[in-house]
Amino acid sequence: MKNIEAKTLKGFRDFLPRQMAIRQRVLDIVKNVFESYGFDPIETPALEYAEILFGKTGKEAEKLFYKFKDSGNRDVALRYDLTVPLSRVVAQYPDIPKPFKRYQIQQVWRADKPQKGRYREFTQCDADIVGSKSPLADAEIIAIIYNVLKKIGFEKFTIQINSRQILFSLIKNASAPQDKFFSVIQSIDKLDKISPEQVKQELITKNIKKETIEKIFQSIEKAKPDSFLHDVLLFVKKLGVPENFFKFNSCLARGLDYYTGPVYEAVVEKPKIGSIAGGGRYDKLVGMFGGKDIPCCGTTIGVDRIVDVIEELNLWPEISPTKTQVLITLFDELFLNQAIEISQALRSENIKTEIYLNPEKRLEKQLKYADKKGIPLAIIFGPKEIQNNTVTLKNLKTRTQAEIKKSDIVKEIKKIIN
Amino acid sequence: MKNIEAKTLKGFRDFLPRQMAIRQRVLDIVKNVFESYGFDPIETPALEYAEILFGKTGKEAEKLFYKFKDSGNRDVALRYDLTVPLSRVVAQYPDIPKPFKRYQIQQVWRADKPQKGRYREFTQCDADIVGSKSPLADAEIIAIIYNVLKKIGFEKFTIQINSRQILFSLIKNASAPQDKFFSVIQSIDKLDKISPEQVKQELITKNIKKETIEKIFQSIEKAKPDSFLHDVLLFVKKLGVPENFFKFNSCLARGLDYYTGPVYEAVVEKPKIGSIAGGGRYDKLVGMFGGKDIPCCGTTIGVDRIVDVIEELNLWPEISPTKTQVLITLFDELFLNQAIEISQALRSENIKTEIYLNPEKRLEKQLKYADKKGIPLAIIFGPKEIQNNTVTLKNLKTRTQAEIKKSDIVKEIKKIIN
Repeated sequence: MKNIEAKTLKGFRDFLPRQMAIRQRVLDIVKNVFESYGFDPIETPALEYAEILFGKTGKEAEKLFYKFKDSGNRDVALRYDLTVPLSRVVAQYPDIPKPFKRYQIQQVWRADKPQKGRYREFTQCDADIVGSKSPLADAEIIAIIYNVLKKIGFEKFTIQINSRQILFSLIKNASAPQDKFFSVIQSIDKLDKISPEQVKQELITKNIKKETIEKIFQSIEKAKPDSFLHDVLLFVKKLGVPENFFKFNSCLARGLDYYTGPVYEAVVEKPKIGSIAGGGRYDKLVGMFGGKDIPCCGTTIGVDRIVDVIEELNLWPEISPTKTQVLITLFDELFLNQAIEISQALRSENIKTEIYLNPEKRLEKQLKYADKKGIPLAIIFGPKEIQNNTVTLKNLKTRTQAEIKKSDIVKEIKKIIN
Repeated sequence: MKNIEAKTLKGFRDFLPRQMAIRQRVLDIVKNVFESYGFDPIETPALEYAEILFGKTGKEAEKLFYKFKDSGNRDVALRYDLTVPLSRVVAQYPDIPKPFKRYQIQQVWRADKPQKGRYREFTQCDADIVGSKSPLADAEIIAIIYNVLKKIGFEKFTIQINSRQILFSLIKNASAPQDKFFSVIQSIDKLDKISPEQVKQELITKNIKKETIEKIFQSIEKAKPDSFLHDVLLFVKKLGVPENFFKFNSCLARGLDYYTGPVYEAVVEKPKIGSIAGGGRYDKLVGMFGGKDIPCCGTTIGVDRIVDVIEELNLWPEISPTKTQVLITLFDELFLNQAIEISQALRSENIKTEIYLNPEKRLEKQLKYADKKGIPLAIIFGPKEIQNNTVTLKNLKTRTQAEIKKSDIVKEIKKIIN
């Protein structure tokens, strides 16, 4: 075979056992929180009719889709997000009981410029409530974001909360033209990154009148939660989110144009990560394939960023890079049968056990293998141990070892790994 | 927005909560068995350079790839299997400790003709041992297949075991031309589907001499395990696989051309499903990107077929179609705060709890919702219960209910769900 270089595409990644261990623990936390609030999982295909996946996306965003013609000459595309597939599912299966609390953890693909922390293949964790207008629905989504970030172990973060309704009405009251509402909102959204003066300048280039701009800025400062958002904030507190973890921020706008009510964004300050989860209410989107509006709210949690940070800052030093708990070494190939017997005894007690499968290697090499993989324990036995009906149990973390009775192996190992 | 019909591509499927429940339980069983033998998970990208994914595939099979040019004009393709990506990973990360026991559970895509049980997007569960020549490695793979099928609950199945080495040498001894070895093997592989006469006929059309054919058939009948396979079978037994669940079958050949040693195939007889997992040793494949051979053996378990069968035959009637364990109903929107309090108490005890989020609906509708979703328990409380400091706990499976003290809710629910 000709020599092909083994490499992945830019923006795409392999996950080896060490990374998988962190990813899986993050995803387990996310799933458990989602499920504790009554969300059920769904999955949708990676590939769909392009026309469907484009959804309400503009021409500009369509460039970011991986799209092609399949062998049947159909225009197809890879999943770009999980919200449009949800909209399709809701229209396609009208019998799904509502409110439909669904979560979906799947990869999405975007032909974006890859850069640090931005990938062309990444995982989205979405939880959405389809078919409820209640402010408690929004509050639950915010409580979920809080619980996920708390359980991951981030020390300091704030979930900022605002409402598009509040922004809409203050922009309207300032007499901005209606066709510029979203454009104005997008500029306001930059207030956490650039100065108010720069935002004002940007609005001038967008042909917004100076007095309109001044009026908008005055109103933003004075803005207060409307009655719906007031209820949301009340329920968030009732759901156990401490007051220093969420706050009303009248400048928060969020980029996506489909939000119609409350919007929320979690910003992690310690460690310094920035925005890591966001969401909001979007009552006009999910009905797009069914022909009628369905109230909806939800969140996307950026797990790739979370996993990267945990890895970079070594936030979970205790996490094992392997699932395997015990390596049974082989002093001699002749002892394979005894090794198998021990392995079966351990497996029957749910101890994850590997027998070293290159029995011709020296014991030293076998122990090095356990070390390199991160297996915490090794069992060693030679003619002496076989005669004594014992094994030597070596703890590779503490570099200690002890000869123990064969009948005590399970008990001794459980003492260490539990 | 123009009206787009909500539908999926042929051969692609949505998984709603009911199907997800079965899938997740199957995958949990598979993962637990893999991990009990010391396998660690990896994941690779959905999209790779086409040239890499094609691997050793012939032109014919390349047609089955979803391939296209990405926006950078690169030839890319969707993952077709998990063996070629494993080969790339082994070459790309030479520091991975060997033996490398990896499992990988990911979707693959094939532009195949969709039919009952055959999908264009499906999940493969692969476990492979890279870098061991030991017959114990093969035996572990066979033991894993046994344990997965046993834990899923299939009553009767047989893992058939043979060796390509045995077939090679008997074909060679019968003086078949070497360039026809694989072609002969592919005909022999059909002996479980068509009669010996038909196989012989096929071999004649392949220009194999009559006396060669007769000699092959005589040798197959008399064939015995060689010394390597003898050890494999011995270890399989030592690993706890009962003798009525595996057997040497000198006709088993398996379709893929890359096997070099033992081959195995699990056939489920009760329920009548047929071949559901297969594998073997392939010492010449995984080294393809690294330029040197690496001994390897492994299996692919066909979980989609398993999930289909469990669903069709309703083999797991007890499995809940929802993760949610309790629905807190709302007699009146005014009681939302009390509902939240109860929900928080339940969640803190890991009880998956949903508050009904359309409080304007009548209680009857709310209970119907719980029924439709399959939530087993509902909490009901109105003015009377609030005054008594109680709630009514309704068991939706047994259609019974009881008024219980608020302080006993957790205890009573745990009694029922555990």
